Amino acid sequence: MPDAILDDISHRRYNPLRGSWVLVSPHRTKRPWQGQQEAASKIELPQYDPSCYLCPGNKRAQGDTNPKYDRTFVFVNDYAAVKEQQTEYESPAQDGSLASRLLRAESTTGKCYVITFSPDHNITLADMPAEIILPVIDTWTKIYTAHLDPHSPLARAAKPTTLPPSTTNGHIVDQPSQQYRYMQIFENKGQAMGCSNPHPHGQIWTTTSLPEEPSLELGSLQRYRREQGGCNLLEDYAKLESEKGERTVFENSSFWAGCPWWATWPFEIMVIAKAHKRALVDLDQQNKEDLAEVIADITRRYDNLFETSFPYSMGVHQAPLTGTNEEIEASHFHIHFYPPLLRSATVRKFLVGYEMMAEPQRDITPEQAAKRLRDCGGELYRRKLR
Amino acid sequence: MPDAILDDISHRRYNPLRGSWVLVSPHRTKRPWQGQQEAASKIELPQYDPSCYLCPGNKRAQGDTNPKYDRTFVFVNDYAAVKEQQTEYESPAQDGSLASRLLRAESTTGKCYVITFSPDHNITLADMPAEIILPVIDTWTKIYTAHLDPHSPLARAAKPTTLPPSTTNGHIVDQPSQQYRYMQIFENKGQAMGCSNPHPHGQIWTTTSLPEEPSLELGSLQRYRREQGGCNLLEDYAKLESEKGERTVFENSSFWAGCPWWATWPFEIMVIAKAHKRALVDLDQQNKEDLAEVIADITRRYDNLFETSFPYSMGVHQAPLTGTNEEIEASHFHIHFYPPLLRSATVRKFLVGYEMMAEPQRDITPEQAAKRLRDCGGELYRRKLR
Ligand SMILES: O=P(O)(O)O[C@H]1O[C@H](CO)[C@@H](O)[C@H](O)[C@H]1O
Ligand SMILES: O=P(O)(O)O[C@H]1O[C@H](CO)[C@@H](O)[C@H](O)[C@H]1O
Repeated sequence: MPDAILDDISHRRYNPLRGSWVLVSPHRTKRPWQGQQEAASKIELPQYDPSCYLCPGNKRAQGDTNPKYDRTFVFVNDYAAVKEQQTEYESPAQDGSLASRLLRAESTTGKCYVITFSPDHNITLADMPAEIILPVIDTWTKIYTAHLDPHSPLARAAKPTTLPPSTTNGHIVDQPSQQYRYMQIFENKGQAMGCSNPHPHGQIWTTTSLPEEPSLELGSLQRYRREQGGCNLLEDYAKLESEKGERTVFENSSFWAGCPWWATWPFEIMVIAKAHKRALVDLDQQNKEDLAEVIADITRRYDNLFETSFPYSMGVHQAPLTGTNEEIEASHFHIHFYPPLLRSATVRKFLVGYEMMAEPQRDITPEQAAKRLRDCGGELYRRKLR
Repeated sequence: MPDAILDDISHRRYNPLRGSWVLVSPHRTKRPWQGQQEAASKIELPQYDPSCYLCPGNKRAQGDTNPKYDRTFVFVNDYAAVKEQQTEYESPAQDGSLASRLLRAESTTGKCYVITFSPDHNITLADMPAEIILPVIDTWTKIYTAHLDPHSPLARAAKPTTLPPSTTNGHIVDQPSQQYRYMQIFENKGQAMGCSNPHPHGQIWTTTSLPEEPSLELGSLQRYRREQGGCNLLEDYAKLESEKGERTVFENSSFWAGCPWWATWPFEIMVIAKAHKRALVDLDQQNKEDLAEVIADITRRYDNLFETSFPYSMGVHQAPLTGTNEEIEASHFHIHFYPPLLRSATVRKFLVGYEMMAEPQRDITPEQAAKRLRDCGGELYRRKLR
């Protein structure tokens, strides 16, 4: 039963996954907006763009030529944030000096991939039926598998039938030259999210370090598991939300998708495995098909909401590539969607000022957001227009 | 001595104030940019705009009329995120149920003010000489003082000569109806930072809760104080940086200003009191004049950097309005500037995708950023053009 008062008063909600709070001000949606508006992207794109570095057969910045791929294509980022090899750097000793306490750095190496979701330049996940999203999930799984610590309990779960990605579909995925700690799979969609090329694609950054967000989450998941006799926080949460229903946007037998209780972004969505799945390698064929269905469904709802190509950042959180058994068992596969739009295709929510200095703040409640997203299912608006 | 290797390799730097890491990829500045560009704001604004709700003598959304103020003017936000009064809400009991563990909320009340920095519609802090910024600092101090717990050790530091803000210069600052925990003073400048009105102004949000960021910082400051025999992390840090110099942008006898070792935003700046100052009420006349000088200097450098009205969010962190003696003694007055621009007036750094899902990431190093900001001091570019 939704707590009706919370629709009306300022309050804070707790995010047990990050261990942090968000300020909710439902009455604030009434304020007028005179500030920046995003340009609504009305440009019709061609199916193939000869100047796009992601289209099949085209040449990339550093001279490589893309194969004529027909599903997904993976290559090492030409402008990677981390690289496999670099000058060695040893962090200065902790000698008790001010500098050793306050100016701490550590070297990080890694590998950054780009993955295209389709050869077509002018479509997005929202245009793709589940069957065509499935190869994306398969490619993610193959790359994750290729980077797994062979001694991890997850390596046993990985299908032996998985081909080495380097021989799949022309993918350039060499064996990693060392054991990385974590793999972040993500997508930036839309110019508002800093995406510099509309060709449907995501990224995969793999590093020797466990980054901040997965590390925060893993800490909470481990604590919950210890305190709640081996239960998993996100499995429990998906069960609770599926029963309550008021924050649900879509669900099937393998996944719950909805606006989490503690959502920061106006139309934030989390996709959570209903059963305990530590990582992509734990998903069976049915789970993968269900995941493709969820991704197809919610990206379509997003586009339908404001009848626009809805911008967002999306990221997969799962078990680290290597870690203690406890870390791996406490991990739980889930996906975050962080979209910036608030009121229309052109008015976004800025997480600035108070949000940066003090605390994330949202206007509409997650329950209101979920209701609006539940109400705009069905066919993609662009297709109806035709 | 700067560690030359760090100019060249990917590494993570530790932020001891938040207890978090940032990924630094100096080689990545070379990547081409085909994505969104901000509109460079070339519009000439009038000194007085009859449709602006902040100009002197104008009517505001809810019907109030602004006085003909001549320095600063403060009023309660017409669309406040938190309010003094609202329906009472009691958080459900922790009865061990899933819902009580995973769906936690608490009521938050508070008061939100808007403060104009000048009656002139068409200037910014960068246009204002230090003498004209001083009244802004005085107004902040008065509002902070009016909300202080009278039993706090800080109340003793507050000048008895401070007038109640409600009688100052026509300011509408009633006594708060209850004791709030924390006051966040901040400014969003520029459309890119969600600011909906160019009239120079900031905001002040005061809440019953201690928000996330100040709470994280306070935790670190207290831990450092305990572990380092009563020393203050930020006082130590300002001393170290002032000696090293490579991240310094500007300093005077009371404040150090520079790009912190752990900066996330490309041209992020922190202003830190050199001596131990817990809050605005600890600043004497000289300190306040020095603070006005720092703010004038760095906002001018920001504008000079890309010859544009430089967008940013700025926020003051200081002691909570009420708290334990340990919390108040560990607090240290400082200001953060988070500007989004990276390469020019129109190309910003997006903290999206990897940054949201995994870890903040920056391209140019803080040392490179500080050098560029050191090199663009002097007169404001706009004035030189005349
Ligand atoms: O209050 P304003 O200036 O209308 O709004 C701006 O600042 C607020 C506080 O940082 C944010 O919550 C809003 O998203 C932003 O647009
Ligand atoms: O790698 P891209 O798409 O060029 O760049 C985009 O995604 C990166 C990873 O989230 C961010 O660091 C960049 O700021 C953003 O513009």
